[in-house]
Amino acid sequence: MKALVTGGGGFLGGAIIRLLLAKGASVRSFSRGSYPELERQGVECLRGSLADKEAAAAACRGCDIVFHAAAKVGMWGRYEDFYRANVEGTANLLAGAAAAGLNRFVFTGSPSVVFNGAEVEGWNESAPYPASFDSHYSATKALAEQLVLKANAPGFATVSLRPHLIWGPGQNHIVSTIAETGKAGTLRRIGRANKLIDSTYIDDAAAAHWCAAERLAPGAPCAGKVYFISQGDPRPNWDIINMILAASGSEPVTKTLSYPTAYAVALALEASWFLAGFTDVPPLNRFVLKQLTTAHWFDISAARRDLGYAPSVTIEQGMEKLKDWFRSGGK
Amino acid sequence: MKALVTGGGGFLGGAIIRLLLAKGASVRSFSRGSYPELERQGVECLRGSLADKEAAAAACRGCDIVFHAAAKVGMWGRYEDFYRANVEGTANLLAGAAAAGLNRFVFTGSPSVVFNGAEVEGWNESAPYPASFDSHYSATKALAEQLVLKANAPGFATVSLRPHLIWGPGQNHIVSTIAETGKAGTLRRIGRANKLIDSTYIDDAAAAHWCAAERLAPGAPCAGKVYFISQGDPRPNWDIINMILAASGSEPVTKTLSYPTAYAVALALEASWFLAGFTDVPPLNRFVLKQLTTAHWFDISAARRDLGYAPSVTIEQGMEKLKDWFRSGGK
Repeated sequence: MKALVTGGGGFLGGAIIRLLLAKGASVRSFSRGSYPELERQGVECLRGSLADKEAAAAACRGCDIVFHAAAKVGMWGRYEDFYRANVEGTANLLAGAAAAGLNRFVFTGSPSVVFNGAEVEGWNESAPYPASFDSHYSATKALAEQLVLKANAPGFATVSLRPHLIWGPGQNHIVSTIAETGKAGTLRRIGRANKLIDSTYIDDAAAAHWCAAERLAPGAPCAGKVYFISQGDPRPNWDIINMILAASGSEPVTKTLSYPTAYAVALALEASWFLAGFTDVPPLNRFVLKQLTTAHWFDISAARRDLGYAPSVTIEQGMEKLKDWFRSGGK
Repeated sequence: MKALVTGGGGFLGGAIIRLLLAKGASVRSFSRGSYPELERQGVECLRGSLADKEAAAAACRGCDIVFHAAAKVGMWGRYEDFYRANVEGTANLLAGAAAAGLNRFVFTGSPSVVFNGAEVEGWNESAPYPASFDSHYSATKALAEQLVLKANAPGFATVSLRPHLIWGPGQNHIVSTIAETGKAGTLRRIGRANKLIDSTYIDDAAAAHWCAAERLAPGAPCAGKVYFISQGDPRPNWDIINMILAASGSEPVTKTLSYPTAYAVALALEASWFLAGFTDVPPLNRFVLKQLTTAHWFDISAARRDLGYAPSVTIEQGMEKLKDWFRSGGK
């Protein structure tokens, strides 16, 4: 198998590449940045932008399958920039893959495309897209996913995976942020609601992509479908934070800040963006507070059935690996 | 005069364009996005990226002067993306302008290029760049500014303006955020330190660019120099917020949250980014808290002397215009 992977410089894309190489596949990476560590692993690295139709098409030629894990993430930025990266980029890659005669396309979607502000408790893939999205990211990932599903055809099989909250060794930034807050002061949790959330260990997020690739074929049960992916083991959200803190060698959070206090500070901080020189900041803190008070977990039986996906580790086992990673200095 | 303006779709760039048109100049805009409102004003709109050397050079041809107001702002994103936009983009535009035979280049810099964590109280342009910068934005704006100053030559005059905290009618996003926080709940200030900060009314920020353009010529006193720009009237930071709230029809902030409480919430929110699905967020809240407890005001006598710059309105007069703008529905 020769696989084209986008987003190979990222956390999930990098894990997909490592898994593909371990499975004996030949891998080509297509991304804007330069990633010498991928080249050292024997990956053929092409640099370019998905906004460039011809470059996207050229990247597909000679491959058997596409894993499209690249996306513009976050809440900061203009809708048109998210649209260009997530929707137009996906459209260009789909067109390039079809033109090059590939017949499998595995898309990394996002569970946030179904979030509508309500508690997400055991939802399956019948959950509809909401009337309005909570961010430009979600809105454009939903549009991109619809393009992917619509492109599914007799000679071109597509599938979208929606892994929730991926974590694990190597996820430098966000895991470091949590570890850092643990060291920066007495970290406290916000509110007493300890909502259940799903999460996905990095190796299992990558494995889901491999499972999908193996099962995907024109006419296969998973062709043209979406699948939620997680460890299948929802936990209270601050328990997850505490496990990450423990893995990083910090004390767990025990004290609690009241939600009204947190909301007041969140507002005051947002009013102060201006004083810090920011001209264009979304209501990030209020968004986070809303997430903290909403459950987010899914029914992953469809992925188990159609993809043969099964988590390979428990959350505790994954945390042990994270701990080893922290202990070895995050290498 | 035929002027090339970058960043014309933004708050400051748009104001510079309006002023240039009012002065009878002919204006060409170069930006990635499409801005029909600029075309309606008679601006020649070229679309393209500053990353494209040839496009940047082509945009310069036939113009007399460049106003380079485009920049990648904020704290969210990779260093290489800031570098590409702010440093390489400026380098490409400088090269294009010189090759096209233009002899004046007005750069919009940032006062944050001298911030080193200390109180900034009446600093003038002798303040050095710090050993380390507080953000990718500041770091790359400092590099870009140095390119601009270095490009100053007998046949090519350059200048960098550093306006601090620009505000006024039309600044949709951040002014709306403040107004919104005023309506969303009982907004409180953070801490009792009411540090003095400089700010710049939008029309005066644009006027500073016009003054610089008029005085700029090879060998002029301002050629190859930097200038802080502000209203020359530092105010306590929460007074500014309260004036914006008043202009938007909201009640002023009276109650205070303690700094330690705000810091605890800031940390807890940052630890929670992960739970909200963000994989790559800077310590934004802590950054804002640091800004709130640090004075930021400048000595603008050099701009008065070399550029003939003088603020045209008082802060109170500017706030009246902001109030009119809010009253007319933000049009």
